[in-house]
Amino acid sequence: MTIQKLALLYQGKAKAVYATSDPEQLWITYKDQATALNGKRKVEVSGKGALNLHISQRLFQVLADAAIPTHYVQTLDTTSMLCRRATMVPLEAVLRNFASGHFVSKFQVPAMQRLAPTIHEFYYKDDGLDDPFMNDDQILALQITNTTTLSHMRQLSDRVNAVLRTYFESIGIILVDFKLEFGHLADGTLVVADELSPDNMRLVDATTGESLDKDVFRQAAGDLVTHYQEVAKRLDQIV
Amino acid sequence: MTIQKLALLYQGKAKAVYATSDPEQLWITYKDQATALNGKRKVEVSGKGALNLHISQRLFQVLADAAIPTHYVQTLDTTSMLCRRATMVPLEAVLRNFASGHFVSKFQVPAMQRLAPTIHEFYYKDDGLDDPFMNDDQILALQITNTTTLSHMRQLSDRVNAVLRTYFESIGIILVDFKLEFGHLADGTLVVADELSPDNMRLVDATTGESLDKDVFRQAAGDLVTHYQEVAKRLDQIV
Repeated sequence: MTIQKLALLYQGKAKAVYATSDPEQLWITYKDQATALNGKRKVEVSGKGALNLHISQRLFQVLADAAIPTHYVQTLDTTSMLCRRATMVPLEAVLRNFASGHFVSKFQVPAMQRLAPTIHEFYYKDDGLDDPFMNDDQILALQITNTTTLSHMRQLSDRVNAVLRTYFESIGIILVDFKLEFGHLADGTLVVADELSPDNMRLVDATTGESLDKDVFRQAAGDLVTHYQEVAKRLDQIV
Repeated sequence: MTIQKLALLYQGKAKAVYATSDPEQLWITYKDQATALNGKRKVEVSGKGALNLHISQRLFQVLADAAIPTHYVQTLDTTSMLCRRATMVPLEAVLRNFASGHFVSKFQVPAMQRLAPTIHEFYYKDDGLDDPFMNDDQILALQITNTTTLSHMRQLSDRVNAVLRTYFESIGIILVDFKLEFGHLADGTLVVADELSPDNMRLVDATTGESLDKDVFRQAAGDLVTHYQEVAKRLDQIV
């Protein structure tokens, strides 16, 4: 049976999500749009969608190889993947191995300061509230999720971090920080969802210290596609 | 031996702290100044220092009766108390039993919504960083304090909350939220320090719903002294 793309369910900044002929699966298309400043700066970057699809599918496979459940099923074309439909937990989980970006300015610490233990931060996905940073007590008292899910998200985040750090290290890249989103499948399984691309992680070349992620775009410091291609090229080398 | 007041060590918004002839003890004087908006609004309120001293000493005694260690030693005059000298942990611990103030506007929840579990929040006392809200991972990675102290602060906060809520209930007052600060004595004991007054807690009359704390001043809604006197009067009734 061939999967058919049906109605558009959600149009995001970097992805479009469609229903499919299988009610348990979604058709996700990675767009060429780059945004910064929570969408205030927006630009069409030709080739970005295909690169993010390529990098994401590779990293989802790396997680699957480590027995970490994700929503990824298979790649459909150069910019689309088939994913399991999940009820999303409305939290962004940010993990920080080294200080960078917002964290550096907020706490006035040196960029790339090692953070031990690795810092977990949760942000409530609510545009009306401006995605506030929340601690566990707040999340539980406002019933954004429950203790079981929160602790499971933390455990999965740590496993993802361990796997991806090692993987990136093997191709000369430091995983500085990254954002994860989680969802529950129909059977209740908690899975890593959303995407795993340089849009959602800070990657630094271990030799040159050069930024290989979306910071290139945030700081208008260079050609985003060239840098994303460099990440994709290194990932391909070790398949 | 009579304690003598020596050099001024610290001049805060609401208190002045002096060394004493005993190196392990401090002379703390409660001032008549009321501030809001992190000190931007400042006003002299005659009688406020004496009222806060009176309320604080009473509440410190209530905690001592429940075997909760505090820095309070004895009252010296109408606006001054003798306290143990403590090395302060640079964190403000905020406990919220009901939604109020900043929390209501940040999360758009109804005022006085019951928060269960009681929410603990930690704010880093650093004017240069604008006292940022931090989660446990951030506190530990930036070594603001260690795991043992953080978990001890949380336990003590819960005990303080349980004792004060019951106590205020018995005099017809709801303890909405409050701020605590902690310090280590020379022997390492962690104690509740700073003050325990309506400057640092939200108190609401259980019958009328009227605010009996600093919100009266924040909102310019009435005479602060009258409301603080009402709290002091009720506390005195049950001694």
